[in-house]
Amino acid sequence: MTLEFDLSALPATEAYKLLSGAILPRPIAVITTVSPEGVANAAPFSFFGILSHDPAILAVGIEPRADGTRKDTARNILETGVFTVHIPDVAMAGVVQAFASPEAPEVDEIALHGLGTVPGTHVDCPRLIDAPVALECRFEQRLDLGAKAGAGRDILIGTVKAVFLREDAVNGRHHVDPERIDALGRLGGATFTTTRDRFSL
Amino acid sequence: MTLEFDLSALPATEAYKLLSGAILPRPIAVITTVSPEGVANAAPFSFFGILSHDPAILAVGIEPRADGTRKDTARNILETGVFTVHIPDVAMAGVVQAFASPEAPEVDEIALHGLGTVPGTHVDCPRLIDAPVALECRFEQRLDLGAKAGAGRDILIGTVKAVFLREDAVNGRHHVDPERIDALGRLGGATFTTTRDRFSL
Repeated sequence: MTLEFDLSALPATEAYKLLSGAILPRPIAVITTVSPEGVANAAPFSFFGILSHDPAILAVGIEPRADGTRKDTARNILETGVFTVHIPDVAMAGVVQAFASPEAPEVDEIALHGLGTVPGTHVDCPRLIDAPVALECRFEQRLDLGAKAGAGRDILIGTVKAVFLREDAVNGRHHVDPERIDALGRLGGATFTTTRDRFSL
Repeated sequence: MTLEFDLSALPATEAYKLLSGAILPRPIAVITTVSPEGVANAAPFSFFGILSHDPAILAVGIEPRADGTRKDTARNILETGVFTVHIPDVAMAGVVQAFASPEAPEVDEIALHGLGTVPGTHVDCPRLIDAPVALECRFEQRLDLGAKAGAGRDILIGTVKAVFLREDAVNGRHHVDPERIDALGRLGGATFTTTRDRFSL
């Protein structure tokens, strides 16, 4: 038996539970940005996807804070035009969870959690050295969500300028080894998946 | 050690290998559409993501065919304005792989592969009864990819009107059980992941 849920008849909180629970597995974008005042920020988002490789385009949806204002990540991307997306591995699960707790804009969350970084190459955002994958991105456009969307809710589109990979995770023909990436995926609630149970067809 | 790949210095085929290999795990959208002539189509896409729940917005990137023309899925969405996204389970892996082989526009791929369907509720697209999740969607806009993008390459944005779930996969508080969904995820190449190795924090 199949159940149908008409989203126009449900509160947004319930739509969130259904969509975040059903669209699986989701990659996690741990996004680092820097505010115009120079404070670094990191936060995870799983309403995220790579959408094209030529040009290399990705999109991330960023919810407002509970009070309806923009989160630091969205504000920094819109004000500075750059961001770095990291794909976390399973070993980073605790850090991903910690980054999800909002801190005040003046708090450097990366330093707070004791993570190592190096400066960006193409963009002025710190790169997390523990992440197996980093994508330096330039902001391109904000999707027009129409009148129904509230303030502070953004879908931001970026182009990937450069890909950083652990040396042992990629070969000379640009094939990436998923075992070496050991990516962390998001399911519903606080549930994560690994990619360790995999197969090829 | 980390390797850097500047995408502006790489052919598109190599950018595809890097991005599809590194942005993991990806959910798979098995999209059904119907042509203006009434022929049903189904095809899988993993350059795909849910981006917002209020409004409920998802995006899918659709490559052109090898000859640069639009694939049936993109053409049908643009011409009819509707589509249905299915999240496949592990048992559907063989079907997902079979759907990836293009057939002529006049071939009903769903019938060809012997899959059961029911008519859509909000949209005139067949719903695959074997899929644990289906999302009936209305086309909203085509992302402007700029002059660099070739013909036939589309990023299409849709709103989700209704969510269909297996009755045993969702409870009365709209929490979805990932074990009952048993989603199939895409990695690089022809490699898939399950969500069976999971944990909560």
